[in-house]
Amino acid sequence: MPAESKPRLAITMGDAAGIGPEVIVAAWSRPDVHATVLPLVVGHPEVLRRAASLLTSGAKVVELDADAVSRGQWTADARTIACWKTCADDVLAVPAGTVDRRSGEAAYQCVCAATRLVQQGDADGIVTAPLSKAALHVAEHIYPGHTELLAELCNVNDFAMMLYLPPGAAVRGPAGLGVAHVTLHQSLRSVFHDLSVAAIVVKCRLADRVMRRLGVEQPRLAVAALNPHGGEQGLFGDEEIEIIAPAVAAARAAGLDVAGPFPTDTLMMRARDGEFDAVVAMYHDQGHIALKLLGMNAAVNVTLGLPIVRTSVAHGTAFDRAWRGTASADGMVAAIRTAALLTRTQA
Amino acid sequence: MPAESKPRLAITMGDAAGIGPEVIVAAWSRPDVHATVLPLVVGHPEVLRRAASLLTSGAKVVELDADAVSRGQWTADARTIACWKTCADDVLAVPAGTVDRRSGEAAYQCVCAATRLVQQGDADGIVTAPLSKAALHVAEHIYPGHTELLAELCNVNDFAMMLYLPPGAAVRGPAGLGVAHVTLHQSLRSVFHDLSVAAIVVKCRLADRVMRRLGVEQPRLAVAALNPHGGEQGLFGDEEIEIIAPAVAAARAAGLDVAGPFPTDTLMMRARDGEFDAVVAMYHDQGHIALKLLGMNAAVNVTLGLPIVRTSVAHGTAFDRAWRGTASADGMVAAIRTAALLTRTQA
Repeated sequence: MPAESKPRLAITMGDAAGIGPEVIVAAWSRPDVHATVLPLVVGHPEVLRRAASLLTSGAKVVELDADAVSRGQWTADARTIACWKTCADDVLAVPAGTVDRRSGEAAYQCVCAATRLVQQGDADGIVTAPLSKAALHVAEHIYPGHTELLAELCNVNDFAMMLYLPPGAAVRGPAGLGVAHVTLHQSLRSVFHDLSVAAIVVKCRLADRVMRRLGVEQPRLAVAALNPHGGEQGLFGDEEIEIIAPAVAAARAAGLDVAGPFPTDTLMMRARDGEFDAVVAMYHDQGHIALKLLGMNAAVNVTLGLPIVRTSVAHGTAFDRAWRGTASADGMVAAIRTAALLTRTQA
Repeated sequence: MPAESKPRLAITMGDAAGIGPEVIVAAWSRPDVHATVLPLVVGHPEVLRRAASLLTSGAKVVELDADAVSRGQWTADARTIACWKTCADDVLAVPAGTVDRRSGEAAYQCVCAATRLVQQGDADGIVTAPLSKAALHVAEHIYPGHTELLAELCNVNDFAMMLYLPPGAAVRGPAGLGVAHVTLHQSLRSVFHDLSVAAIVVKCRLADRVMRRLGVEQPRLAVAALNPHGGEQGLFGDEEIEIIAPAVAAARAAGLDVAGPFPTDTLMMRARDGEFDAVVAMYHDQGHIALKLLGMNAAVNVTLGLPIVRTSVAHGTAFDRAWRGTASADGMVAAIRTAALLTRTQA
């Protein structure tokens, strides 16, 4: 990407029955988005038209073909939504707020098309709107979520899901706060099997790398404990002694600024207050409870370890209130801004 | 307790090397405390004198003997700290911020004495300052914490630790937000063994009862899931299907207003926003991460299921910054207020 040009971001539509289309349209109306990036929706133009109509945004949806997209020939501004049609028309028959094979298939096709676009160098990064895992499964695409699908499409093994809060009111760190997860979409019972020194060190490395790209010269990382009170010196579990502390030592030996393991309840307060730039959490809820409480609408989901830039909103499809025009676009705007920043600092 | 008199609260000193003494003295200087309750410190008068001197509070510490205490003959106001000496003088030699057998023993003796006082009817409730589990263990009193010690002293089996945020800025429920824990001071690995329909129903009952006493006519309870995304219909763990959902059904059949299981990350946001009066969490950190982020200093630890009223600050001994006079008294004041409310609504 030439330094002077704006990053080209492929924004996937997500599940058409959810709030994805409306948050994309709502974000599109923000002038600062267009000052920062050149966005393109990867989805179905008619779905976007319906969302624009719902929000009475006045924006016109312009359908592009693959050729126009690959030549980078699209215009996007607050009045013009550029959309590359990458899914079948049957998605238009799916009722709002329902799990449906057709919208699951469409969401899957959009993610694949957007990924290829970036892999071919025709876009600089992907921002994804939420998809429904249930709809994905009904369409026979068996992934626990976006993260694992993207890792497969990009053929990588060492990846992580990070929830990221940009700098602002909710957190005091100069570059915000990231929480990377060692384990993610799996039962809590299976977490014990998958925790290892190597897995924790990999996530520390990934967290360090992304926080550098987000503007921290020497990221200060903290590793969460697994057990209450950090295990109380082995009294309430030995994973801190056997696995997590050795992983912290190994990450430090590798030159990272890592501390821990720390009891997670107070660690999350310390991280919020700016003592650390990123936290490495052992399991999904450990990180998600904290970051969603701190700022659900401002939070960005960043996939670490991919050869491409990918961010996402941190919220779900919200089927219970989709297509009412009430969903906040803040998460989508934050995801777009974060993706733009990452495209400028790519290794 | 006669309806017109103020509740008599026994406030334990906690670990003398921690921030307990200074938060007691700081809370004592708040006039509204004395308008609400008649407090008594159960501890060592000289430790309190040192804390009063540190804070230059100007309050005088008056030592009481057991006889004066049992006759209810003590005065307490912002200038007069009533203290019943219930521990040995060797606690005075313990340096600030250190784990020591002598301060562990003193803290233990104070809790036992305060409990007996309430059991004998000479006080109406206990408020505890933080103790150090490590010091307790060095003194050969092997309890994971206050809660389990008090349950043993009161000879009860069905009890729970609730973190409670009084109504106010952090939470929108009319009576605040309580989070009761099904399991507490134990390894995460051992949680699976201890989750049962019966255990969850007991905690729902206890949470319902305490929220009624705190002013909710029909408490709205929510039960947290164990696995990420609530297990995604069995995809990421089956405890929701096998144990938690049946427990919710059983609690509803017993007449409680209980919903769930809900994915915990979004549940905590919903509870904060006033949709529920109390949450029943499956393990320690699930509840603690959320409530500490929402309001560490305002949070109160309430022991449910005891025949006596007992509240506590939610913070620890903070050995790293004890005896500097910088600790906030907000948690102690909130614990005193909550205990006062509970003494007025005791079954």
